[in-house]
Amino acid sequence: MPGPTRGDAAGPCPIGRAADVLGDRWSLLVLRGASVGTTRFDEFRAELGIADNVLADRLRRLVGHGLLSKVPYRPAGGGRTRHEYRLTPAGHDVFPVLHALMNWGNTHTTAREPVPAMRLVHSACGHDLGLDGRCPHCARAVPRTEAAWLRPWRADRPEPVAAD
Amino acid sequence: MPGPTRGDAAGPCPIGRAADVLGDRWSLLVLRGASVGTTRFDEFRAELGIADNVLADRLRRLVGHGLLSKVPYRPAGGGRTRHEYRLTPAGHDVFPVLHALMNWGNTHTTAREPVPAMRLVHSACGHDLGLDGRCPHCARAVPRTEAAWLRPWRADRPEPVAAD
Repeated sequence: MPGPTRGDAAGPCPIGRAADVLGDRWSLLVLRGASVGTTRFDEFRAELGIADNVLADRLRRLVGHGLLSKVPYRPAGGGRTRHEYRLTPAGHDVFPVLHALMNWGNTHTTAREPVPAMRLVHSACGHDLGLDGRCPHCARAVPRTEAAWLRPWRADRPEPVAAD
Repeated sequence: MPGPTRGDAAGPCPIGRAADVLGDRWSLLVLRGASVGTTRFDEFRAELGIADNVLADRLRRLVGHGLLSKVPYRPAGGGRTRHEYRLTPAGHDVFPVLHALMNWGNTHTTAREPVPAMRLVHSACGHDLGLDGRCPHCARAVPRTEAAWLRPWRADRPEPVAAD
């Protein structure tokens, strides 16, 4: 029997409502990719090693929940119209959840092979951003356009966060 | 074919590793309950309206990943030994993820019936805490023992966050 805080899609608890959308591993990983500018089906597939039907399902869900918008484009060189998936404002606002997951994962999980920790930095000064989006070094709130992920196992330079 | 950032349990990306543990709706809801002091199987079941086998699976996973510890107790009045599930330090540290989910859910999802928004407040002064755990009113970082969830649809008073 559902109690009053049952975490369903339209219950009174916002954590329950958020978990209904975001409490899914693949959806979080799609949003992680989108946060650094991944937009195309083939790119998500290559990054995630995910089955086509699972990826299609998660993209559809995230579009349905209003976190991604589906935008048509014509591939260079012609061919049939394809679609890109771009973060909406609601999708961009998942960023603090990804940031909190990064911190937790850095602290409480271990990679198979040792790697320097992932960081979220202020691109202007290179210091780590706080969970509230402030740069302690510059002593100010940093817009997301000045934030960058640092993933040392992928790239030497910080990767800018996808702009609104 | 898995790419270098495939979000598996031991890959290089901490968001992937965290999503492997926390990218599950029921696990997040169990941790939400634990964050206000829910410890017993029957209490989780009543709060979540979850099937016994699903709850048992999630508790086992969270114990296995080191977020909950399983502690025996003897019920008042006797009877066979039962177990409580208590947050470990790694479990307590999921708190910022729940906080970020609350913010996202408050902003981007809607309850079936209108309810005042859930808040995370500083119990000493009643002001909202930032994602970094600072109280802007008191201008200081607030230990979790001074944080409280405010869930107006459940209780008039803030509910203290489970202590370490």
